[in-house]
Amino acid sequence: MTPTPYNTEILTIGNEIITGLVADTNSVMITRRLETLGILVTRHVAVGDDREEIAAALSQVLERADCVILTGGLGPTHDDITKQVLARFFTSKMVTDAKVKRQIDLIFQSRGRETPQASYAQAEVPEKATILHNAKGTAPGLLFEKNGKRVYALPGVPMEAEHLLETYIVPHLESLGAKKVEHRILKTTGIPESVLWEEIGPVSLFEERVKVASLPSLLGVRIRFTATGKDFKETAAKLDAAEKLLRQKIDHHIFAVDDETMEGNIGAWLKKNKKTLAVAESCTGGLIGHRLTNISGSSEYFLEGAVTYSNEAKQARLGVDPALIQTHGAVSEQVASAMAEGIRQRAGTDFGLAVTGIAGPTGGTPDKPVGLTYIAVTGSAGTRCEKFRFHQDRVHNKERAAQAALNLLRLYLSQ
Amino acid sequence: MTPTPYNTEILTIGNEIITGLVADTNSVMITRRLETLGILVTRHVAVGDDREEIAAALSQVLERADCVILTGGLGPTHDDITKQVLARFFTSKMVTDAKVKRQIDLIFQSRGRETPQASYAQAEVPEKATILHNAKGTAPGLLFEKNGKRVYALPGVPMEAEHLLETYIVPHLESLGAKKVEHRILKTTGIPESVLWEEIGPVSLFEERVKVASLPSLLGVRIRFTATGKDFKETAAKLDAAEKLLRQKIDHHIFAVDDETMEGNIGAWLKKNKKTLAVAESCTGGLIGHRLTNISGSSEYFLEGAVTYSNEAKQARLGVDPALIQTHGAVSEQVASAMAEGIRQRAGTDFGLAVTGIAGPTGGTPDKPVGLTYIAVTGSAGTRCEKFRFHQDRVHNKERAAQAALNLLRLYLSQ
Repeated sequence: MTPTPYNTEILTIGNEIITGLVADTNSVMITRRLETLGILVTRHVAVGDDREEIAAALSQVLERADCVILTGGLGPTHDDITKQVLARFFTSKMVTDAKVKRQIDLIFQSRGRETPQASYAQAEVPEKATILHNAKGTAPGLLFEKNGKRVYALPGVPMEAEHLLETYIVPHLESLGAKKVEHRILKTTGIPESVLWEEIGPVSLFEERVKVASLPSLLGVRIRFTATGKDFKETAAKLDAAEKLLRQKIDHHIFAVDDETMEGNIGAWLKKNKKTLAVAESCTGGLIGHRLTNISGSSEYFLEGAVTYSNEAKQARLGVDPALIQTHGAVSEQVASAMAEGIRQRAGTDFGLAVTGIAGPTGGTPDKPVGLTYIAVTGSAGTRCEKFRFHQDRVHNKERAAQAALNLLRLYLSQ
Repeated sequence: MTPTPYNTEILTIGNEIITGLVADTNSVMITRRLETLGILVTRHVAVGDDREEIAAALSQVLERADCVILTGGLGPTHDDITKQVLARFFTSKMVTDAKVKRQIDLIFQSRGRETPQASYAQAEVPEKATILHNAKGTAPGLLFEKNGKRVYALPGVPMEAEHLLETYIVPHLESLGAKKVEHRILKTTGIPESVLWEEIGPVSLFEERVKVASLPSLLGVRIRFTATGKDFKETAAKLDAAEKLLRQKIDHHIFAVDDETMEGNIGAWLKKNKKTLAVAESCTGGLIGHRLTNISGSSEYFLEGAVTYSNEAKQARLGVDPALIQTHGAVSEQVASAMAEGIRQRAGTDFGLAVTGIAGPTGGTPDKPVGLTYIAVTGSAGTRCEKFRFHQDRVHNKERAAQAALNLLRLYLSQ
């Protein structure tokens, strides 16, 4: 990990986190924001709503870190004890803060209610803390400074934590003038991680400019570059150079960059080229149509989908010849191609995409095992069909089939 | 926090976690599973792919905990260093494990590929570790035992981590015989949380038997009961009594229990009653078909879906009268009903379900705002149509519409 001017850790407090009831999204949000300022968080720690645990964790974190951002346990209910633990930790008595009290009244007034007596407890704060006034809620944030170290305490409600982070913490960290850090993510699919890296070559090719992480998932491998520089111009130049080098090796495997999606990029291409698409799905059951229509404006190019689960539907809706199904089976190259051609012709679109496969866990045979899937794409350049074999459970086989289908379409469109 | 016989912490390793690129879902999954065994995890710690950080965190965690479950950094790429750090930490040399090597070859063979040389690195393991054989991937898990403490290392891929947790860790923890903790989740939809609780009454009704949590989400409110007892017979009796009481108040809002899903329960009903279903989707774009076909065996009752995004498709594929669309608009009660009746008749099914709406963010008008959605269900008991208005973004409006459609179908089937 790059040395940072400021060693920062995040301490999350809450039984809902430590019992796995909800994921710790605040840590993710704070970490991402700090990283853009060149502050790499070195550790996340989460503990429950327990006085001793919180105090022990805080003491241990402060042995390592210059700055601790703590979230959770500042609310009005009986299990919100962070404020008391902090007051004892910094041997501070509690006082009433008049400005916080007015803010609490204002918030309840704006909701047309009287302030419940219990809510005034939020205006009790440790005397030694600097108050971080919270315009989005009733719980103020707190800042303690001791021996050059800073402890920020933020409410656990994500919107309030983010508000106080931006208002109080970010300006301070920016004033430290750290280096900027920027990421770029190149998303690939259809090729296993080890094979991908054989095509790319040694990671050392990139490491003079950027750090490299390889992130495999069910739907493909993402390659993440991280660049550090004095400003975003320098980081962008390093990322551009690294991306250019990567594209020289594996450009055809890259389907999206950063927040882009496969379906978004396919949609943008169809829109720009004023082309239309229809989809015939068997084993994916509608997932491809769902993904394509997640894109705003998709009605301009996605005209229709047919989820032809039964053989009868494949014949009646797509005009697949029953003899083809009889001879080759519903899961075959011939039927996938006929489905793609059928939906294209009936919907009158420029392109047709079709999937037929065995999602499992039942329905497999020695000849046609679970996971066997044929995907066909058709257009004025002819019909192309590929065979796949997926090895996951039903839902994941569907997801992989939909991803492979969209990728085959992407490659067809870009040829 | 209840004292546990076994003080367990989770240590997550990975730059993707510590930089906020992805949320730490493994910690959530492991924590939840351990809680069912009466093991309350006391701390989550996350660090990056950094040798010194990993070793320091492990050493600190082991000062407190009897058992550490560590995930991440066991893969084949250059930034996967957990195995090396553990070998050094436990002063163990590396050896080749023949069984792991065979497993790696088997996995690549089943994918019809040769094993890339780099993948054999996965078969190199610390000599002092017990190997946790991984049937779902190439990276084995590891178990180190020292001074009565256990360190488990699992791969970061969630499916593989869960597989090794169930196969190796859960059986050991069960043998420790702690007090049992059991949850039951009753899932409702279609009713706001505050209204739901007005119908249920005071939470104190339940609290002599179980703890109660109310968990609102976009797709409905889940009510979670937690019971503690000496064995699962005692916890089940408490949960049964609480569920019975809840069902006396709001039975019709409950669509599923625990791991059951709406689509699973609808499917089970259709299968048992030998009835069939077809679906016509506009704004949901295939999501309803996707959800229905996530259920194994759905081909028995789900015959087909039509994703009729364009008006032409609504006419050609469902026989919707163009005059209806002209007079009332594509997003109307009349068109939703005609779509449901059209798909039922053309597919020859017992039931037809249809959705038409404006997912947004564009396409709304003062008369027909974004989020307006009509859902119709039809069968031998006639056609029923309901109007909804959703207020989320495009993707969430689609998800809410699909949920509302399946719920309307559920209520129709149960009448």
